[in-house]
Amino acid sequence: MGDTRPVLALDVGGTKLAAGVVRPDGAIASFRQVPTRVQEGPAGTVERLLRLGDDVLDAAGTDPADLAATGVGCGGPLDPVSGVILGPPGLPGWDRVPLGRQVRDRFGSAYVENDASAAALAEYRWGGWDVRNLVYLTVSTGFGGGVVRDGVLFRGAAGQGGEFGHVVIDWRGRRCGCGARGCAEAYVSGTSIATRAAEAVRAEPTSTLAMLDPITAKDVFEHAQDSDPTACQVWDESIAMLGRAVAVLINVLEPDLVVLGGGVTLAGDRLLDPVREQALAQAMSPAAQVCDVALTRHGDRVGVLGAAAIAYDRLDRG
Amino acid sequence: MGDTRPVLALDVGGTKLAAGVVRPDGAIASFRQVPTRVQEGPAGTVERLLRLGDDVLDAAGTDPADLAATGVGCGGPLDPVSGVILGPPGLPGWDRVPLGRQVRDRFGSAYVENDASAAALAEYRWGGWDVRNLVYLTVSTGFGGGVVRDGVLFRGAAGQGGEFGHVVIDWRGRRCGCGARGCAEAYVSGTSIATRAAEAVRAEPTSTLAMLDPITAKDVFEHAQDSDPTACQVWDESIAMLGRAVAVLINVLEPDLVVLGGGVTLAGDRLLDPVREQALAQAMSPAAQVCDVALTRHGDRVGVLGAAAIAYDRLDRG
Repeated sequence: MGDTRPVLALDVGGTKLAAGVVRPDGAIASFRQVPTRVQEGPAGTVERLLRLGDDVLDAAGTDPADLAATGVGCGGPLDPVSGVILGPPGLPGWDRVPLGRQVRDRFGSAYVENDASAAALAEYRWGGWDVRNLVYLTVSTGFGGGVVRDGVLFRGAAGQGGEFGHVVIDWRGRRCGCGARGCAEAYVSGTSIATRAAEAVRAEPTSTLAMLDPITAKDVFEHAQDSDPTACQVWDESIAMLGRAVAVLINVLEPDLVVLGGGVTLAGDRLLDPVREQALAQAMSPAAQVCDVALTRHGDRVGVLGAAAIAYDRLDRG
Repeated sequence: MGDTRPVLALDVGGTKLAAGVVRPDGAIASFRQVPTRVQEGPAGTVERLLRLGDDVLDAAGTDPADLAATGVGCGGPLDPVSGVILGPPGLPGWDRVPLGRQVRDRFGSAYVENDASAAALAEYRWGGWDVRNLVYLTVSTGFGGGVVRDGVLFRGAAGQGGEFGHVVIDWRGRRCGCGARGCAEAYVSGTSIATRAAEAVRAEPTSTLAMLDPITAKDVFEHAQDSDPTACQVWDESIAMLGRAVAVLINVLEPDLVVLGGGVTLAGDRLLDPVREQALAQAMSPAAQVCDVALTRHGDRVGVLGAAAIAYDRLDRG
């Protein structure tokens, strides 16, 4: 039997910190998010995360002593056993940060997991999908994912649960933050869409994007909707590359469902429809025939739900 | 406890049919292989496969009634539950061939599985590697693979165990047999190495490969050893692409070990050393740090051992 007490869920992203009190059915009793301010470094950010935890406990009227556990999602690489963060590209300076211990000292327990793996587990538990094999992909500051196979979160021999942003699209293409060339993350993350748009505008200064500084991925989407040719070119190429990356992951992982989340997917069906069509057309049969592609129904709460799912999962497994 | 009786193992490849009688410790009591002759179509090929089974039973002095089971490895796609072959690219005309039923009618049982998944299980059981998470890649007529995670063969929602030859290398590159562009299989299979060499020779007719017709992947390797610039260029590019494909699979699947097999890997350490170096340099940490790359120790017997491993595995699982 699962625990009936709520959990505290903490989510550390490159852009936002989020916290919530979550019940075993996935209901969110309280939720709050604030900017990460990565430039302030880990010490200040961790302290603000812990205060955010206090705030959501207050808001939910939950005594810390009544929590079943605390779950933490964070960008990887990290060690899910010790809870030490191992220098994620999106969190400069977070090299060997003992986040698990710091959270445990404040709230009594801490189960730390890669945030995209955590989100995959949240989709499996509370996404309403009714599938056993699910891949979750987040297209936000970076591009990553997690996988649940036959109902169990996959961690991999190194504990990272797979680095899905680092499938290749163009092996002689753009340099990726990982050091290799042409990874999907170098093209389809929010950061790289914005960077590629800035480059395209330098070559084509008549673009309507040229009046913006900085240009965001959201700007690229909106100006593409308004038919600016430069924005259309960058957006369409991003969609095509995301579609192909999803096709590769369907080929390799053969899931029943790929769920897309993260800030860039707020573009909604104008992102989902072409990505789904291109991914399923390019993936191999029969893998493509048994698979669907969908958007998360959890919006910006998927990170907190992921951290909560990790806490309940580890409690369930003892 | 496992079964102590031997199994009959049948392996259907695009180039060769192989059969053997295998004992529970992986010892091969008898082994035989013959050309597949794909142009003769499935009916004749299946009949020759069944006769090959009779031959190895005779050679081992094994009465069919004393077999624990019969295992069959075959190129996918296929349905591992019904044993129906679903039109593999390497076996033209094998569309909905009820191979499982045909083998069962002759030998009393038949457990059918994707050949590369079967080989992964053989490496796990009898490879002497002492790891729990293993990816097997075969570079032969095609390029494919299988994965064992935490000691269990992974099949995927579609039952194919992953189509590892269809990770992308160059998304706008060569058309692959699967219909998409720039898959690894379009560059690093034996077939595609030979095709690319033939194209290179047309552009550079002074190559020492120009006197050969047809050119094989083995020729490309040997002429590269003799420093023919055209052969070197095709071989080195193939190695670089295989290295990158292995890096992608390490990123996505996070295994402890990648085992390489198939005809092209008979090039030995001259293939393994650069592929290992490039794969581990380009894969992300910490996944790359916990992973190694090695060659199968089973040579051309890995297919038959795979089919045997499938038979014992299914018996063990009831």
